[in-house]
Amino acid sequence: MSNIFFLIPFAAVVALGFALYFFKQMMRESEGTDTMKKIAQYVRDGAMSYLKQQYKVVSIVFIVLALVFTVMAYFGLQNLWVPFAFLTGGFFSGLAGFFGMKTATYASARTAHAASKSLNQGLQIAFRSGAVMGLVVVGLALVDISVWYLVLDHFVEDVDQGHKMMIITTTMLTFGMGASTQALFARVGGGIYTKAADVGADLVGKVEAGIPEDDPRNPATIADNVGDNVGDVAGMGADLYESYVGSILATAALGASAFILVPEMQTKAVFAPMLIAAVGIFLSIIGIFIVKTGEKADMKQLMAALNRGVNISSLLTAIAAFGILYYIGLENWVGVSFAVVCGLVAGIIIGQGTEYFTSHSFRPTQKVAESAATGPATVIISGLGLGMISTAIPVVTIGFAIMLSFLCAIEFDVKNMLTAENLSMGLYGIGIAAVGMLSTLGITLATDAYGPIADNAGGNAEMSGLGAEVRKRTDALDALGNTTAATGKGFAIGSAALTALALLASYIEEIKMGLMRLGQTTLEFANGDVVETSKATFVDFMNYYQVTLMNPKVLIGMFLGSMMAFVFCGLTMNAVGRAAQKMVEEVRRQFREIKGILEGTGTPDYARCVEISTKGAQKEMMFPSLLAIIVPVVTGVVFGVAGVMGLLVGGLSAGFVLAIFMANAGGAWDNAKKYVEEGHLGGKGSDIHKACVVGDTVGDPFKDTSGPSLNILIKLMSMVSIVMAGLTVAFSLL
Amino acid sequence: MSNIFFLIPFAAVVALGFALYFFKQMMRESEGTDTMKKIAQYVRDGAMSYLKQQYKVVSIVFIVLALVFTVMAYFGLQNLWVPFAFLTGGFFSGLAGFFGMKTATYASARTAHAASKSLNQGLQIAFRSGAVMGLVVVGLALVDISVWYLVLDHFVEDVDQGHKMMIITTTMLTFGMGASTQALFARVGGGIYTKAADVGADLVGKVEAGIPEDDPRNPATIADNVGDNVGDVAGMGADLYESYVGSILATAALGASAFILVPEMQTKAVFAPMLIAAVGIFLSIIGIFIVKTGEKADMKQLMAALNRGVNISSLLTAIAAFGILYYIGLENWVGVSFAVVCGLVAGIIIGQGTEYFTSHSFRPTQKVAESAATGPATVIISGLGLGMISTAIPVVTIGFAIMLSFLCAIEFDVKNMLTAENLSMGLYGIGIAAVGMLSTLGITLATDAYGPIADNAGGNAEMSGLGAEVRKRTDALDALGNTTAATGKGFAIGSAALTALALLASYIEEIKMGLMRLGQTTLEFANGDVVETSKATFVDFMNYYQVTLMNPKVLIGMFLGSMMAFVFCGLTMNAVGRAAQKMVEEVRRQFREIKGILEGTGTPDYARCVEISTKGAQKEMMFPSLLAIIVPVVTGVVFGVAGVMGLLVGGLSAGFVLAIFMANAGGAWDNAKKYVEEGHLGGKGSDIHKACVVGDTVGDPFKDTSGPSLNILIKLMSMVSIVMAGLTVAFSLL
Repeated sequence: MSNIFFLIPFAAVVALGFALYFFKQMMRESEGTDTMKKIAQYVRDGAMSYLKQQYKVVSIVFIVLALVFTVMAYFGLQNLWVPFAFLTGGFFSGLAGFFGMKTATYASARTAHAASKSLNQGLQIAFRSGAVMGLVVVGLALVDISVWYLVLDHFVEDVDQGHKMMIITTTMLTFGMGASTQALFARVGGGIYTKAADVGADLVGKVEAGIPEDDPRNPATIADNVGDNVGDVAGMGADLYESYVGSILATAALGASAFILVPEMQTKAVFAPMLIAAVGIFLSIIGIFIVKTGEKADMKQLMAALNRGVNISSLLTAIAAFGILYYIGLENWVGVSFAVVCGLVAGIIIGQGTEYFTSHSFRPTQKVAESAATGPATVIISGLGLGMISTAIPVVTIGFAIMLSFLCAIEFDVKNMLTAENLSMGLYGIGIAAVGMLSTLGITLATDAYGPIADNAGGNAEMSGLGAEVRKRTDALDALGNTTAATGKGFAIGSAALTALALLASYIEEIKMGLMRLGQTTLEFANGDVVETSKATFVDFMNYYQVTLMNPKVLIGMFLGSMMAFVFCGLTMNAVGRAAQKMVEEVRRQFREIKGILEGTGTPDYARCVEISTKGAQKEMMFPSLLAIIVPVVTGVVFGVAGVMGLLVGGLSAGFVLAIFMANAGGAWDNAKKYVEEGHLGGKGSDIHKACVVGDTVGDPFKDTSGPSLNILIKLMSMVSIVMAGLTVAFSLL
Repeated sequence: MSNIFFLIPFAAVVALGFALYFFKQMMRESEGTDTMKKIAQYVRDGAMSYLKQQYKVVSIVFIVLALVFTVMAYFGLQNLWVPFAFLTGGFFSGLAGFFGMKTATYASARTAHAASKSLNQGLQIAFRSGAVMGLVVVGLALVDISVWYLVLDHFVEDVDQGHKMMIITTTMLTFGMGASTQALFARVGGGIYTKAADVGADLVGKVEAGIPEDDPRNPATIADNVGDNVGDVAGMGADLYESYVGSILATAALGASAFILVPEMQTKAVFAPMLIAAVGIFLSIIGIFIVKTGEKADMKQLMAALNRGVNISSLLTAIAAFGILYYIGLENWVGVSFAVVCGLVAGIIIGQGTEYFTSHSFRPTQKVAESAATGPATVIISGLGLGMISTAIPVVTIGFAIMLSFLCAIEFDVKNMLTAENLSMGLYGIGIAAVGMLSTLGITLATDAYGPIADNAGGNAEMSGLGAEVRKRTDALDALGNTTAATGKGFAIGSAALTALALLASYIEEIKMGLMRLGQTTLEFANGDVVETSKATFVDFMNYYQVTLMNPKVLIGMFLGSMMAFVFCGLTMNAVGRAAQKMVEEVRRQFREIKGILEGTGTPDYARCVEISTKGAQKEMMFPSLLAIIVPVVTGVVFGVAGVMGLLVGGLSAGFVLAIFMANAGGAWDNAKKYVEEGHLGGKGSDIHKACVVGDTVGDPFKDTSGPSLNILIKLMSMVSIVMAGLTVAFSLL
């Protein structure tokens, strides 16, 4: 068994190796003309200075939290590994974002230059650069996981193997909290940055001054391009790193729990999610190499090439899951493998559903565009309506995925599905589905990350005056990226829901560990029953803490959880509004005070706009992010375990739906505008177009700030509760 | 004990008597000039024709559902009283809306005429007419409750008194379903009607043609005024009738359950919510008479007069609650009385919070107005942000109300708060808090309903050319109405949450009755325990059906519940969008084809616009409303009791927060526009004003269609589940 473990670090090394290979391949390409190089340098500098600033601020938060955990460990409320695990999780998550962004900022001018030769060459550079990000994320994740597993396996001592594995897996979960914390700051900060710049640039540049997108005369245009990198690339990298490790670690903890009495099977169950991820890496790399087309490929062929890559990777991973689980001899390997398939299929369905609702090839988005005939108000109403209705597909899909993966893992023993044993095994199945959904992240993230690279390439082409043909090609790549991004979002959002469920179960494991650390060896029930804490099942804990829907603490927790999702979005929306306002004022000021900007004879002060976005983002990201950390702790101290579980489930069920609503409404507005810009309903400059621009502007923070941050919020609240479980069991008011 | 019962029908008769008195008093006033009469007649006819059409369609739904219940009763899945109780609930709810609307349509011209004399006279007519609605709602509710209680008490036979009272109270709950069904159709249909007309009138009239609100040259203006009556008056009447009876009946059922083994105390616990309501009626009438000011009163004095009336009623009701519960000798009468206070206070705090976030006297709404400086997109973003953040106050308040009313009812026995006995008693306390919050509905609804009357009076004044001074006065009344409406909304939304919780507990009671009807006399647990069904507690049922947060059926139910809230809003938003689109096209057509409309020489075809709104509303209301009825049934059949409870709690927690978000965002946009119209930030006609009009237009369906309908949706889903409980226990797939 221990030999197969080394497949995991091996996969990690292979992923990082190929990332380096693709990176070097990209760096060999030419960056084009001097102007192109200069602009790329501007963007690179802006992005790096932002990231430096960001990491400086976030480091302080990490140091404070690590100290808190150290104090908790001192009082026996956590174990001593926690602060270190937490720090490494944050560090690697940040590193994934950093590498991704570095690559993206080097790739954009090169993509623009390649696109000036052919569409296919542009695609290759952009996509391979996206693959760097995808592979860095999965590679670093498995490095972190393998190293920590080996360290803990070596140092943790305990009476029995079953218990030891529980300690290892629940401790490793705390580096998930580090990753989540980093990811939330990255998403919120990056999201505010990019949308403040984008909204600011659009409102004054496009709407008021009537100059095109990415026009060099617009002072906010560099900030806008920097934003794509810090928000859509670095933010997304940290985000998906978090999802990926979260799903693997939560599932490992559930595996440790499900087989706590059968040590040999327990190890297999813990390794299974990691092995599925490892196998997924190899098959993602194969998929990446498959993405190729002839030199004269058109859009449809490009799209088909991308889809082919993803689909082949997914199919092979599904097959390989059966193989590897059979090979290690996991109990009910067939059922668990089918859970992997559930996850993969659910991700694809959600992606397709998202595409249907947000692509302008379909009626829903076209209707949003048509509603612009009666002005901006009706665009907003119909976009909001579309977003709300579109939540049905992902929710129903995830419902099916939950039920099926649960049932597969318990061999369809419907009659006894809620016995203690089946419940543990079924929850493990749900976790496995989440891992399955993310197993091909290496390639799905590549298709996702290449979008902003193409977007930036377009910006570079426009500012360097490369001509309409090149811009048209980069626009085509960007549009293609929007479609694949829809699929990517499906995976991100669906896996967040499944992972959060797995984390919910892990929370109970952590409660168990907390009780044992405090020396409470038995649970005494109201009816006189006594159960040993170390042997207590999920069902026992649910009964012990009365985590039922009639418990007012659970209900209050649920209200608070739902509220958190909304308040968090409200805060981030307002943050974008405020930061954008400052940008608008600055751009207007420059147009007014710097002579000759609009005539092209004066140079705008790009750096000032970059600085405004950076400062705005840093200032605005703190409160909502800290709220996400503080509320679960306070809820635990006041309402105990039942309240926390209510909070997590309420936050999950409302947050999941709200996240889909915001992402899809935002996507539909964006594409409704693009639909008009392609010449429908009056085309660019018409009143209908102006109304659509309003929709797009509202949609910006929806889809790129608040919506994606919600995915992380849901999981971060769970992670915080898990790490703070020791405090909750030691002390709660009610 | 049985003597005091007659206080309930007596209060009902008194309420209806005073309603008649106020109605006659209002009818004695003059309707003003011939033009005023003519316009009032137009509006009256339009409103009546809508209501006729509405009731015709809804009757069919009622007949079908009553047949379904009859079939269920035939198969022993319900008792035979259910179809009748259901029909009367629907009938009385419709009647309350009908009387309220009739009064409002007679009152508007009279209010305009009185306002031409003085502000105070205008207020008196409008407010007293609002009081007719308030008193009709509470009067009819208690008539319905008393009559059914007497009928069932006479006919229901059972072995023991405790069980008999359970049958009576759970059967009475089913007329709550009738009321909810009627209310949902009224709110959705009326809401679509009013906003289609409003949005249509504004978009073409105000924005495109640049003519003022309510200008007689606008073809949609009569439809717009009809809309205020059918949506804001008839819809609200049916809605609050539903809330009022729902809270009383759910609490009575919980009382019957909490004291099932102590028949004498049981009767007291069942009567208690009804008696609190009865007492509240008398004290509301006193409050209504207190609302008076001197002839030369200004706005502040008017507001103070209204507040005085509401506050005195509330204070007296709180005191009287202690008196009446002491008098009947209810166990722990002090604690239960404090639960009444919790409800009253929570309602007031939520109202104040709503006012803070939506009144333009405070910063939040002013900031929304200021954000208009950068165009409509930022108005929308900041309004959405405000709405989301504003959810914090009501959620935290309701959280406190839940916890405190629960703890008061169990004499702060925190250590044992979740024992079977304390849980029943605590849930009863939560129900009592809901009843307390609504106990002064007679007067709070009066302050709420007078708003649309004043609004219509303004419309009448404008169309009749009564001059700027009169319009200014009716505008002042309208603005005052907006502020009191905020408080009213606080009560409606807060009581919905508390009532839904009480209904959740009633659902378990109904499950128990269903099992007993099917002859399942014992519950056998996995660990071998056996409990008699008739003696099973909430805790037993939670364990039996494993309604815990780790049960995947519960979790899937919760996702579906959250989704339902969003999908329902999306459907109603889109319905408004489509109906408004038709109105816009019609108004544009009339401007184009009927000569001389804008010059004032041609007469627009008002009737055509009325017809378009009517047809649109009727067509669009069916699907979302039926969905609310079908989804709980399907969930029950597939996922059983655990799935249904998940659905209800998920729908409640997400729906409650979503409803507040939509109501407050809508209110803030409305008042941001009013703020600018009062001359701030450039005033009417400025670009800022135009941007604010976009916000207001988006806000219209938020605050008057989707938001308020959610309150009912939450409760209707519970009511449907309760009535269908027999089916769920007899058959479920998983």
